[in-house]
Amino acid sequence: MIKVGEHGWLEKDAPVAGPLDAIVRPIAVAPCSSDTHVMHGGAGPFENRILGHEAVGIVEEVGELVKNFKPGDKVAINCVTPDWNVQNVQRKGSNPSHDVGLMGSFKFVLQEDGVFAELFKVNNADANLVIIPDDVPIKSALMAADMMPTGFYAAEQANIQLGDTVVVFGIGPVGLMAVAGARLLGAGRIYAIGTRKNCAELALEYGATEIISYKDGNTVEQILEKEGGQVDSVIIAGSNASAINEALALVKPNGTISSVNFYDISEKFDIPLIEWGLGMSDVTLKTGFCPGGGMRMEKMLNLIQAGRVDPSKLINYEFEGFDKIPDAFIMMDEKPRDLIKPAVFFDKIE
Amino acid sequence: MIKVGEHGWLEKDAPVAGPLDAIVRPIAVAPCSSDTHVMHGGAGPFENRILGHEAVGIVEEVGELVKNFKPGDKVAINCVTPDWNVQNVQRKGSNPSHDVGLMGSFKFVLQEDGVFAELFKVNNADANLVIIPDDVPIKSALMAADMMPTGFYAAEQANIQLGDTVVVFGIGPVGLMAVAGARLLGAGRIYAIGTRKNCAELALEYGATEIISYKDGNTVEQILEKEGGQVDSVIIAGSNASAINEALALVKPNGTISSVNFYDISEKFDIPLIEWGLGMSDVTLKTGFCPGGGMRMEKMLNLIQAGRVDPSKLINYEFEGFDKIPDAFIMMDEKPRDLIKPAVFFDKIE
Amino acid sequence: MIKVGEHGWLEKDAPVAGPLDAIVRPIAVAPCSSDTHVMHGGAGPFENRILGHEAVGIVEEVGELVKNFKPGDKVAINCVTPDWNVQNVQRKGSNPSHDVGLMGSFKFVLQEDGVFAELFKVNNADANLVIIPDDVPIKSALMAADMMPTGFYAAEQANIQLGDTVVVFGIGPVGLMAVAGARLLGAGRIYAIGTRKNCAELALEYGATEIISYKDGNTVEQILEKEGGQVDSVIIAGSNASAINEALALVKPNGTISSVNFYDISEKFDIPLIEWGLGMSDVTLKTGFCPGGGMRMEKMLNLIQAGRVDPSKLINYEFEGFDKIPDAFIMMDEKPRDLIKPAVFFDKIE
Amino acid sequence: MIKVGEHGWLEKDAPVAGPLDAIVRPIAVAPCSSDTHVMHGGAGPFENRILGHEAVGIVEEVGELVKNFKPGDKVAINCVTPDWNVQNVQRKGSNPSHDVGLMGSFKFVLQEDGVFAELFKVNNADANLVIIPDDVPIKSALMAADMMPTGFYAAEQANIQLGDTVVVFGIGPVGLMAVAGARLLGAGRIYAIGTRKNCAELALEYGATEIISYKDGNTVEQILEKEGGQVDSVIIAGSNASAINEALALVKPNGTISSVNFYDISEKFDIPLIEWGLGMSDVTLKTGFCPGGGMRMEKMLNLIQAGRVDPSKLINYEFEGFDKIPDAFIMMDEKPRDLIKPAVFFDKIE
Repeated sequence: MIKVGEHGWLEKDAPVAGPLDAIVRPIAVAPCSSDTHVMHGGAGPFENRILGHEAVGIVEEVGELVKNFKPGDKVAINCVTPDWNVQNVQRKGSNPSHDVGLMGSFKFVLQEDGVFAELFKVNNADANLVIIPDDVPIKSALMAADMMPTGFYAAEQANIQLGDTVVVFGIGPVGLMAVAGARLLGAGRIYAIGTRKNCAELALEYGATEIISYKDGNTVEQILEKEGGQVDSVIIAGSNASAINEALALVKPNGTISSVNFYDISEKFDIPLIEWGLGMSDVTLKTGFCPGGGMRMEKMLNLIQAGRVDPSKLINYEFEGFDKIPDAFIMMDEKPRDLIKPAVFFDKIE
Repeated sequence: MIKVGEHGWLEKDAPVAGPLDAIVRPIAVAPCSSDTHVMHGGAGPFENRILGHEAVGIVEEVGELVKNFKPGDKVAINCVTPDWNVQNVQRKGSNPSHDVGLMGSFKFVLQEDGVFAELFKVNNADANLVIIPDDVPIKSALMAADMMPTGFYAAEQANIQLGDTVVVFGIGPVGLMAVAGARLLGAGRIYAIGTRKNCAELALEYGATEIISYKDGNTVEQILEKEGGQVDSVIIAGSNASAINEALALVKPNGTISSVNFYDISEKFDIPLIEWGLGMSDVTLKTGFCPGGGMRMEKMLNLIQAGRVDPSKLINYEFEGFDKIPDAFIMMDEKPRDLIKPAVFFDKIE
Repeated sequence: MIKVGEHGWLEKDAPVAGPLDAIVRPIAVAPCSSDTHVMHGGAGPFENRILGHEAVGIVEEVGELVKNFKPGDKVAINCVTPDWNVQNVQRKGSNPSHDVGLMGSFKFVLQEDGVFAELFKVNNADANLVIIPDDVPIKSALMAADMMPTGFYAAEQANIQLGDTVVVFGIGPVGLMAVAGARLLGAGRIYAIGTRKNCAELALEYGATEIISYKDGNTVEQILEKEGGQVDSVIIAGSNASAINEALALVKPNGTISSVNFYDISEKFDIPLIEWGLGMSDVTLKTGFCPGGGMRMEKMLNLIQAGRVDPSKLINYEFEGFDKIPDAFIMMDEKPRDLIKPAVFFDKIE
Repeated sequence: MIKVGEHGWLEKDAPVAGPLDAIVRPIAVAPCSSDTHVMHGGAGPFENRILGHEAVGIVEEVGELVKNFKPGDKVAINCVTPDWNVQNVQRKGSNPSHDVGLMGSFKFVLQEDGVFAELFKVNNADANLVIIPDDVPIKSALMAADMMPTGFYAAEQANIQLGDTVVVFGIGPVGLMAVAGARLLGAGRIYAIGTRKNCAELALEYGATEIISYKDGNTVEQILEKEGGQVDSVIIAGSNASAINEALALVKPNGTISSVNFYDISEKFDIPLIEWGLGMSDVTLKTGFCPGGGMRMEKMLNLIQAGRVDPSKLINYEFEGFDKIPDAFIMMDEKPRDLIKPAVFFDKIE
């Protein structure tokens, strides 16, 4: 990102490792819609900022206080890398992704340069890196950087109890992972709302029991009718701010709405309180940002290793070679209709 | 309530106890702003409906399946009396107050006649009644019907951890009990927002560490300045729907907003998403309705008995005699500035 | 059960429905080791008690206060049927299976006659029955009476977070369902401890990633070595009281041990406190009994319907006809080595 | 500690601050029974180890990576100071006090030299130190190092809901803080078990509603009779391993036992399973170690500042001057009958 609305290659000095940092050479990266969102100015008027927050790589160098990693280690990195020495992350049960304030732990792109580079820096390396086991494919580890932990967090926040019925708004890559997460957490029926054919097929594979499309009529009415009533939980992982109104119509008293959408600064919730039971419905709305850190990453890799989920299926456009990053980035920006997730592999694709 | 906007005495046959019911003769009742709200049509065009949901009384008669209560028992009753044979109340961790749907467990007033009567019916008596111990004053037991469990629920929903900072919007009777509840659950600093002098004094007595008044400037700014930043939890127990926007400005990432307001049908939440961290702030909004049932009542009485809280201080207007119910009701409707809570005692006030 | 140690047919009058009850005619039943345990006197010197607590059936008659079920309904019933009018079941987050004290909600066998009869009684029918949908096989609904909700509860109590490593002691029917439950709740690696070949195969099918047998050496050492350290959670669903010591050796600080074993009255925990980190390890031990009620059953059927688990695979001995109950019961008592779970179907097996 | 069983002054070089560390000069310290326990060999054959883990002090020097503290800051320090760069502390909802394994975060005494010194080192200073506000007395801040957070943790682990009945074993300083913690978390009746007169008086002041002494008969029977049944939660903060058996006799099905006792290596739990409802009682046993870190300390200081609790009342023996540390230590070792907690203040006592 050269300036708002303009992207291109930047020449910069190699990043330098502080005592707790690691310098990582990426071997695969994936652009995300939040990268393009930033490029268009969605996070402010950055200039000369390297974009990208989804990567796997090889440790090139470590700071003098790093104990558990060394050059040559093949590592996965959550897109969110908290500074664990900040007291804010210590609250019991909290998401550590707001270390020095809102999204403070999102170092790549928002605080510093991102991963679309020959080398990038990871803060608090001991706390934020994790070795990729040999039996975890690179593609899967790459999807564990953001898509999987964000989608799964959406499901974790939804208070799913065994056998519950869940609705998922959106079947883009995060929505698909939310479907998989809801299944992993014990949901019974899962309604996924979306229309794109390849996404719908993947949603069914990941655990949706029914695909709901606006083309077949009002989505809320379709679900209420099929379900014979309201549902336990609604996950918003796509659509826009008006999804909250549909979610409120869908969810039972005592139910939960979990949103991981990155809303645009121009959007607002506009909720007549009759939709929220005049405040008496015991409905909970949770919003959330991808929880970061090394243990989270390890858990993601454990799930892949145990065969519980295969997030590599999200990648349906593959590029080969460092110089193809712009192609992948432009594709993400233009979002061809059949795109789920593009990725760039710097070596031969395994 | 004779019809919308009109109140007066109704002549009705005495209620008949079904097999699981008890018939109770009230000895003290308290009007609540939701009674007057209903009278003005806030819950629909009821006709010939007896109002009132806060009472203590003497069991007059029990149904044939009632095992644990008998005529002559002096009992307290939560204003919400779920039908515990409905499967909806079985969800783990849920509020049982929505038995057959939204507020379904609110039998008095909304489903059937209320307690401003010579006799009233309590469904599922074994599950919903509780004996008042001799050392619990009638006034306190009366405040345990709605003010105390609702205010405390507001605090329970606010995810308060030991030493947290909490803001409470509103210092009417429910807000005051929310203050007391926040203190009982381990809050450190408690900012209570309100202006009425006697309420402010009571708020300090119940545990508020600071009273914030709009007369001293913008309330949000006052709190942010005194606190040196945002707070852990915000409780909304008063004010109107716009309090949500102030709450969002006050609460930290990872914080919780708990609302027990009964919003008017004409109100709406109007929330620019920038106020909600574009959905990334991990802020939770919980709405809630008074949790009912006998065990809840017993816990309230336990707290009174152990001296943890004295809710009788809420009552600052006392009436004597059954025929004074309209006076108390009209007072609640007109809300003189120094009113906290009126109550009517049918016998001499102890 | 005629008396301790002696079983046979009893002639009894047909059960009579109280106002809240239903009378059900079983169409399939399954003996459980707790039935044989009771027969041998494990729960006291019962006489002339009809055994059996796992059944599905057809409603024959309902009490006058039953609203939602009628004769002819095909129903599933949790083996635990709480009296929901008892205040004990109202505690937030609690297991309702101790209505009037320890195991008080276990009406079949312990409090009253069980289900190995031409007709049996279900208390609080509206709260405890659930219609079996057409697409849920009878075999699966039968396994939802006890094996599935008990095994799943073991997993729910184990505080499993996404990607955690779990050890399950025992691969009998409850242990197998605990394996399935751990997978359904998001476990990564699952070590199942047992030796019987057909059970081991089924454990792998239900989600175990590794079978550990004492025949290959010390089970604790095997797991610590394969895992490269301790695990997050241990489920005890088999073995005897000494499993607790192995569980403590296996679990990390902050980990959880969840036991659903029905221990014999002669057993004891004998735990040198060094095994429990001298009390400093933050290890939690939860014991538990099958949570009952209709909503629980509905959730179990939802999971079957959505294809999340197929508990019918547990049944590997099938009997046809009411008069085969004793054969199945004797088989359960003698436990041939390849037995997982026997069941008796009164009509043709679907 | 010179060697097991022998204490005396050690001459050592001043500690050196690593990049994340602070060097603190204590202004007040308190000996704890775990210090004397270690001196007698309870934690292994240490030699030339400086004891002590409860202190407040002035920052003397900070490492180059420390951002938020500087020489001259008056600071409080939890006795447990995790290394927050270790991934183990990242588990959601977990106690961070086991960073590299059991009690790994207990750096003072167990891993390194303690605080009974002219200078001592605090690891991860930014994460573990907290400024003492002017209105928090030094004595209170000193009790916030271990007594208060340990006792409060005992209460937090006990799953106390508003109005619950709680039993606390032990009215030493940790037990007294557990009583205060139970009150702060909303307990109704609190039975405190102990006999020492001054401790009993303080227990009543901190919130106990009844003191139970073995001198008046069997403590379990006394409580069951006064309560009219079993209780919701039991906290073990004193007594020995046999308290578990009494706790099991006292607690309801679905209840919780929370132990923060540091048991001796020679002790064991010896629990006939009939006492644990044959494993069917849904009783939970949680063990726990003082949760550390700066945010925890800040919350403790918030509670003191807001007037919720005054832990300084625990200190009933005060010494003045650095050279009085041995006197206080010997007093703690000998435990005169009226001792609650000794403390040493290096300057004039405020």
